[in-house]
Amino acid sequence: MEDRNCGHNKVKEASSSCYSSSPAKNIHRIQKTQMYYSFGPHKIDVEDVFYTTDLIFVFVNLRPVLPAHVLVCPKREVKRFADLTIEETIDLWVTAKRISNLLENYHNASSLTFTIQDGPQAGQSVPHVHVHIVPRKVGDFENNDDIYEAIDETEKELAEKTLDLDKKRKDRSVEERVHEATQYRKLLL
Amino acid sequence: MEDRNCGHNKVKEASSSCYSSSPAKNIHRIQKTQMYYSFGPHKIDVEDVFYTTDLIFVFVNLRPVLPAHVLVCPKREVKRFADLTIEETIDLWVTAKRISNLLENYHNASSLTFTIQDGPQAGQSVPHVHVHIVPRKVGDFENNDDIYEAIDETEKELAEKTLDLDKKRKDRSVEERVHEATQYRKLLL
Repeated sequence: MEDRNCGHNKVKEASSSCYSSSPAKNIHRIQKTQMYYSFGPHKIDVEDVFYTTDLIFVFVNLRPVLPAHVLVCPKREVKRFADLTIEETIDLWVTAKRISNLLENYHNASSLTFTIQDGPQAGQSVPHVHVHIVPRKVGDFENNDDIYEAIDETEKELAEKTLDLDKKRKDRSVEERVHEATQYRKLLL
Repeated sequence: MEDRNCGHNKVKEASSSCYSSSPAKNIHRIQKTQMYYSFGPHKIDVEDVFYTTDLIFVFVNLRPVLPAHVLVCPKREVKRFADLTIEETIDLWVTAKRISNLLENYHNASSLTFTIQDGPQAGQSVPHVHVHIVPRKVGDFENNDDIYEAIDETEKELAEKTLDLDKKRKDRSVEERVHEATQYRKLLL
């Protein structure tokens, strides 16, 4: 099920035409192929993705509301939970269960918030089904439910900008996110 | 999978000792056996339950935050999402998907809120895993995320009282809930 190597056939190429059939002749035209997963209109670098199955990918957040706030997402870009196949539904939640338990223990948390904002009237900003997982601790938010407002804010900010991997961002650094994703990959070994 | 008749072996009896081995002799001692599902320390009348599988039950809410706010719950009383077996996890979410889609259409809603408050630090008041499903419409809450506070309030109020089926309650009437559950059962035929 797992394909942590993010096989070529599982993700999209940002520059799919960069390979030449005659590499020696066209060596100067060869660019690094940037692999990414689609999250609605956004591109999620494979280095931010720390777990995948045939159908699902899990990635660290650009702007987490709390430590280890991660997103579990079907690879197929569908807007609503009802659009998922049975196989995707199962994989989404079996994956969410496994990942969340590891993250809760890793961060010495004591609870978990799971939420799907399924459709715009439920606060969904990125039109691609995703489960928010947030490990929770005593007093992490003064008012427990402020976490949902924080999740919304994060999504709105994300929706307002184009997450282009070629563009510099001043959110969490790549290094920070890659470090986090690397730690989580180790948990899953 | 489905056992909408709520077979005797699937639910508990509120008065399990009321049957005599000699019914003719003890006829005066026979009482109506009240069947219910356990939801943490609370008893959920089978008439409030509108869908079941071998592992899961779905019931209308005593104090819904919005119309068709229902709860999907494993029959086995476990506190945390991580405690569920793979089979329960799958059934919980395949059921939630099916039910939520029907309720959204039935109520002419346009989105859905799904949430699991998994553990006390995530706002869980009833220590028995449950998925909140709430169909959403434009403007149903002035601030979209107020729904989570409303869900918490409902759970806290529920936790403060003993949901005893023998006790009169001034929440939603039994008739109102049974009517709702009956409507939803019809959707699932």
